[in-house]
Amino acid sequence: MYVKDTIIALATPPGSGAIGVIRLSGEAAIPLTDRFFHGKRLQGQPGHTIHFGTIRDESGRILDEVLVSLFVAPGSYTAEDVVEISCHGAQYILEEVLRLFIRNGARPAKPGEFTLRAFLNGRMDLSQAEAVADLIAATSSGAHQIALNQLRGGVSHEIQRLRQELIDFASLIELELDFGEEDVEFANRSELYNLIGRVQSLIRSLLDTFQLGNAVRQGVNTVIAGRPNAGKSTLLNALLNEERAIVSEIAGTTRDTIEEMLNIRGIQFRIIDTAGIREAQDTIEAIGVERTLEKVRQGAVLMYVFDVIKTSPEQVRQDLARIVHPGLKVLLIANKMDLNPYTLFEHYFPEPGKNGELRADEPDTAWHPDSRGWVPVSALNQMNIEYLKEKLFEAVVEEEIPMDVAVVSNARHYEALQKAGESLKDATQGLQSGISPDFIAMDIRRALHYMGEITGEISTDDLLGNIFSRFCIGK
Amino acid sequence: MYVKDTIIALATPPGSGAIGVIRLSGEAAIPLTDRFFHGKRLQGQPGHTIHFGTIRDESGRILDEVLVSLFVAPGSYTAEDVVEISCHGAQYILEEVLRLFIRNGARPAKPGEFTLRAFLNGRMDLSQAEAVADLIAATSSGAHQIALNQLRGGVSHEIQRLRQELIDFASLIELELDFGEEDVEFANRSELYNLIGRVQSLIRSLLDTFQLGNAVRQGVNTVIAGRPNAGKSTLLNALLNEERAIVSEIAGTTRDTIEEMLNIRGIQFRIIDTAGIREAQDTIEAIGVERTLEKVRQGAVLMYVFDVIKTSPEQVRQDLARIVHPGLKVLLIANKMDLNPYTLFEHYFPEPGKNGELRADEPDTAWHPDSRGWVPVSALNQMNIEYLKEKLFEAVVEEEIPMDVAVVSNARHYEALQKAGESLKDATQGLQSGISPDFIAMDIRRALHYMGEITGEISTDDLLGNIFSRFCIGK
Repeated sequence: MYVKDTIIALATPPGSGAIGVIRLSGEAAIPLTDRFFHGKRLQGQPGHTIHFGTIRDESGRILDEVLVSLFVAPGSYTAEDVVEISCHGAQYILEEVLRLFIRNGARPAKPGEFTLRAFLNGRMDLSQAEAVADLIAATSSGAHQIALNQLRGGVSHEIQRLRQELIDFASLIELELDFGEEDVEFANRSELYNLIGRVQSLIRSLLDTFQLGNAVRQGVNTVIAGRPNAGKSTLLNALLNEERAIVSEIAGTTRDTIEEMLNIRGIQFRIIDTAGIREAQDTIEAIGVERTLEKVRQGAVLMYVFDVIKTSPEQVRQDLARIVHPGLKVLLIANKMDLNPYTLFEHYFPEPGKNGELRADEPDTAWHPDSRGWVPVSALNQMNIEYLKEKLFEAVVEEEIPMDVAVVSNARHYEALQKAGESLKDATQGLQSGISPDFIAMDIRRALHYMGEITGEISTDDLLGNIFSRFCIGK
Repeated sequence: MYVKDTIIALATPPGSGAIGVIRLSGEAAIPLTDRFFHGKRLQGQPGHTIHFGTIRDESGRILDEVLVSLFVAPGSYTAEDVVEISCHGAQYILEEVLRLFIRNGARPAKPGEFTLRAFLNGRMDLSQAEAVADLIAATSSGAHQIALNQLRGGVSHEIQRLRQELIDFASLIELELDFGEEDVEFANRSELYNLIGRVQSLIRSLLDTFQLGNAVRQGVNTVIAGRPNAGKSTLLNALLNEERAIVSEIAGTTRDTIEEMLNIRGIQFRIIDTAGIREAQDTIEAIGVERTLEKVRQGAVLMYVFDVIKTSPEQVRQDLARIVHPGLKVLLIANKMDLNPYTLFEHYFPEPGKNGELRADEPDTAWHPDSRGWVPVSALNQMNIEYLKEKLFEAVVEEEIPMDVAVVSNARHYEALQKAGESLKDATQGLQSGISPDFIAMDIRRALHYMGEITGEISTDDLLGNIFSRFCIGK
């Protein structure tokens, strides 16, 4: 599947800048550059060196004064010869240089093709390659950290370790099959049983990291809902107040009228403001409420805001009964606390449980900020907003984002791990029922297959095409 | 005026890409990078080498895996120690790395500050430094070529040569002044006269290139005008037809509803479509016509389009009388030629001269495409459009854009040259009237001053501030 042609692409973002970098990889990268680079001969120069000169087209016209960085195979990103041409950052120049090389045999790289080559040439495994795209797309410290850990082999090492343990045992079982009729057992069944149990529990703990990993990578959909004038927009502003500047500093952060990004300790919360919930007076209002409910259904976290003076505990309970569904994480935000003595809080219930179920019974009597998952705030006076952010973070992340622990953030890895876990469950059941080793071997091979898909030891053209098409060109 | 601190900036365009490059320049560039770069010690490494490693913040958290390019003073762009850190092209990472270095003593670079340092450290003169900004802004081959020629010293060398000749003579005159009362003449008056004449004529020929240089650099304002339904928009589309794709390929090319860029052999024509000219029926229409006339007044070239079937020679003449002004270059475009036998053309006049004056007398009798500055076309059928482009190009550029000849494209240089020319004219007049050498010396010193301003041998903080503030940050 891998043709040894030489690919070229702009590696820096499009647009004007001080410099723009064009990258070539392949057997012809250095000789082709030598044809148009005037300064010195590049062939024979050592890798990791930089050379000043001009790029001239076929007619000798100077296109630019450039710096050429040389990476000699296998000491490069792709493990092939790589040339990086650092030009003046003019779109016109970059296009002319690209055209010159393409006219003379370089092929425009497809998205992710440099990284694909790095993978095919064994410079990184598939989960590391995927981390490159995640790293470039990271907009928060959490996403950055998880991607960087994955790039440095965090997930791969875990998978490799599990795989190796299984492979050793699988080969013993395969051996039994070779001896077929003779009814010998090379693989100790109880050891195998223990091993599979251990691998399964490791897979489970990796699977457990996915909720966090996915939240960090994708951002957490967080809906603000409540009755009209409960202070939803004021709360949104209070939350964004200090963050807004930082958010807008980051180019490319998409914002529309209803969604704002809030970064809390490395997690991106996509905060969605909604229309106020109330008894619909007419059809149009009913549609607005229905839309709010729809947003809440799509959310992972609900911030239910209510006015502590105007809203009764009964009304709060009614609203929650309408909008909360199982699995939703609910923060009850008692707003306008500046107007309210704390003691009133004891009148409010229910306390939403971890899974959003409403527990109307056993209200706490002593009030403190943590009580019943309620957060008393004054959005207007920025009171307790930091505490609210802490609660938001805790709603998604149990503790800190783990630093050097493998976190699964990729849905493809999650699915493969799930399937591997199921195959091992089948194997366990087979062992328990004393089934023929054929079937156990098949289950383990299937588990190995799924785990191999994560690191790319098992891959298909379709899978690779699908993964690398999501990359940017030039990487 | 020059502080030896260490500056830092993103050198690549903002946004996501495969890589992003952060550039440091100054005495602390290498030791500061050493503090946060883990891989090997950079101090002591030779220049023009590349090193792989990680950037870690103060707490040891890895920010990215990077390639560091090392340039050791004076062998760098700024002639100082320069470090370029090639990171993954994520905005998040680039900002974190920038912040890390800024927290630890690097100063965010001002626009053009790297190039300013290159100038202050004698790596390039001022006109070369200005060419760097022009080169990055170039969107056509003409602008690119002129900027690159200037960057490589084209204009500077011309100026230096003229200056040197004058300096030699000026020193002889200064010598005369030292001998004051003794009435000796070290500087041969007729030789000086000839020299000044030669320098003046060289300045004139440089000044002559400015019209072309400015057109190439800024683009040529080209107005399409004519009666309603003469086919103005069809003509615009026909002109842009093949170019539109190329234009839209270039990111950042600004377009609004009325202006389109057309590139003809390296010259950018800013083509402005206007409302149709006719006898105003009401006030609103009169305003529209007035706006068209305003556009024509601001234009350098007018494409007057008329319908060869519906418009009489008399009407063409009336329109031109209303809108043409001296200095405007006029192309008369006879549209809808598909409907018209060529012979009708003989009925049309006047022929607009080079300066747009209307010559109603002496019409040519034999018709061919070049006759009377008229261009017969059929916009609808794309007939003769290539020829029209040729005529447009010729209206601005006499022949080809000169390859290796210095072209003045910078208004500041043009003004300085003009002033130098005037000073030399004063000197000539002084010589002719046998005036005291004091005055001649003063005139020559003034001419030298203005010429020195071009190359930056004479510069003020204000001038430098003004020039470099127009640069992008990171260059």
